[in-house]
Amino acid sequence: MQICQVVGYKNSGKTTVMSELIRYFFNLDVKVGSLKHHGHGGEPDAPKHTDSSLHFESGTVMSGVQGENSTQFMMGFPFKLDELIGMYRYFSIDLLMIEGYKQADYPKIVLLKSLEELVLLDELTNIIAVGSMEGELLANLDYPTFAVQEIQAALPRLADYIRRCYDG
Amino acid sequence: MQICQVVGYKNSGKTTVMSELIRYFFNLDVKVGSLKHHGHGGEPDAPKHTDSSLHFESGTVMSGVQGENSTQFMMGFPFKLDELIGMYRYFSIDLLMIEGYKQADYPKIVLLKSLEELVLLDELTNIIAVGSMEGELLANLDYPTFAVQEIQAALPRLADYIRRCYDG
Repeated sequence: MQICQVVGYKNSGKTTVMSELIRYFFNLDVKVGSLKHHGHGGEPDAPKHTDSSLHFESGTVMSGVQGENSTQFMMGFPFKLDELIGMYRYFSIDLLMIEGYKQADYPKIVLLKSLEELVLLDELTNIIAVGSMEGELLANLDYPTFAVQEIQAALPRLADYIRRCYDG
Repeated sequence: MQICQVVGYKNSGKTTVMSELIRYFFNLDVKVGSLKHHGHGGEPDAPKHTDSSLHFESGTVMSGVQGENSTQFMMGFPFKLDELIGMYRYFSIDLLMIEGYKQADYPKIVLLKSLEELVLLDELTNIIAVGSMEGELLANLDYPTFAVQEIQAALPRLADYIRRCYDG
């Protein structure tokens, strides 16, 4: 399974870059999974007033619903990133796109909004590309760069960097 | 892991029996999981307009969101029941309460609404108790019975039947 992280602070374009890369690989028939770290300590939105949420409120730690073509799980406990990744491997995902988890050591695309954030490039590991909506931030970097607002043009190049990071 | 199914036709009281049993075991510090088969061929409700659903629409087959204390997964494919049960085992659930999947062979509580439904008792396997809101349906059955509207009183007895079905 290949893994690629997309990291950056709020409003740096993570959602756009994630969605465009997912769509790009989907169109190539790659079996893509995604994982997002919900920021700011909150909880992900949940369907309300469903049997599944009712079970959860009654005291399950893990609640699943199977439909005709899809399945949902809610777990009332957090995981280590490695445990989560194990689940994607279990389901034979080809490429896992991870949003967030800055400190993890997987190949990552870093998105920058301001000069102050350039320090991220020293703090984070395994950077494969750097994107920004501010062109001047991308000058003179030691990494491949792209303009977030022109992500479409950059997709084949980014996909190529991701493919090179095969981790078995 | 112990497993107990709750099966019956629409409006037979499945949701009530599931929720009460889950709460009962939760109060005994049992690590309970639940799994529901979404009836009528539809799909489970999903959170809308979230990054997770956006990733799904962009083409992921498996999308996860981790919050501070909970984690959600959406998978764009159906599973065999055994594969689903494997996930609950993986997370060391003590008791899995399953709503639906009538034809499966796990220990099950059958809920009846009408005389015509008595045939279920011949068709289904591994019945441990039969409940109904209609007292007359419960007379002369070969199984332990309970009134759904008095589920609270029946909980210790039902819990006992479930515990006896330890399956390793």
